[in-house]
Amino acid sequence: MNSNKETAIEADAKVPAIRITRDFAATPEQLFRAHTDPVLFARWIGPDAMPPRIVYWDPRPGGSWRYVTEHEGVEYGFHGCFHQVRPDRIVQTFTFEGQPDGVALETLTFETLGERRTRLHAQSLCDSFEARDAWLASGMESGVDQGYAKLDRLLADGAV
Amino acid sequence: MNSNKETAIEADAKVPAIRITRDFAATPEQLFRAHTDPVLFARWIGPDAMPPRIVYWDPRPGGSWRYVTEHEGVEYGFHGCFHQVRPDRIVQTFTFEGQPDGVALETLTFETLGERRTRLHAQSLCDSFEARDAWLASGMESGVDQGYAKLDRLLADGAV
Repeated sequence: MNSNKETAIEADAKVPAIRITRDFAATPEQLFRAHTDPVLFARWIGPDAMPPRIVYWDPRPGGSWRYVTEHEGVEYGFHGCFHQVRPDRIVQTFTFEGQPDGVALETLTFETLGERRTRLHAQSLCDSFEARDAWLASGMESGVDQGYAKLDRLLADGAV
Repeated sequence: MNSNKETAIEADAKVPAIRITRDFAATPEQLFRAHTDPVLFARWIGPDAMPPRIVYWDPRPGGSWRYVTEHEGVEYGFHGCFHQVRPDRIVQTFTFEGQPDGVALETLTFETLGERRTRLHAQSLCDSFEARDAWLASGMESGVDQGYAKLDRLLADGAV
């Protein structure tokens, strides 16, 4: 059975959040590992052309993380804290260092759909609709799609 | 010159946030210390009847914090991470452990108004209007007022 390879990316109508929904041929535990193990995470996150380098990564409640990517000689940084880390739910903060005062609150939940199928729900909460809409308009969708496609391949290869 | 002792607590009309505004007879540096030094923080935060005990507190970006209070034999816990810590701006996550899946993103900014007068802007961003409204309806306002009154006294005593 193939996973649903369509990533749904929606702007919430009521709150300044982006909601992403994506199904994987995986268990919840595999998705949890993919999002918390830094070696695994670095193998799939983001656009194919911009593999990240993990600078630090402590995936426990109260821990923090940072990675950098590079494109055409320019380095881009991302960092945040892990607020909650549970097998079915991760809450973390997220800042793109190109906008150092911007911060989103990310909530990831892993919903089992049955035999080795899990639905990822990812909510990115911004503090204004302007910030949310600018993020959506920034071209983030292709990077998200490419990342999940790499994760599909890692799962299929038994690497997670 | 007296500080404005009125705390303004407002529900944002557009986003699920609570906005608190309060003036202090203080410099921005004093308000920053009051919010980041755990010994000072514990002397003013919250209702007078519920002094907190700091369990851990690392006020650096990527650090985490937790404190507990007690009322009529029941212990209440609060914890989060410090996402950003700058002299004019602090961003942290906040969970009340009575609702362990609830989390707010708190942004505190310290705006100088001139000679030893500073305006605190505190924004608490929730992920739903229901959560925001329930928090407002919970009686949090008197605890906020009592806390700021204690901070006024600490400032007047030269303790900050």
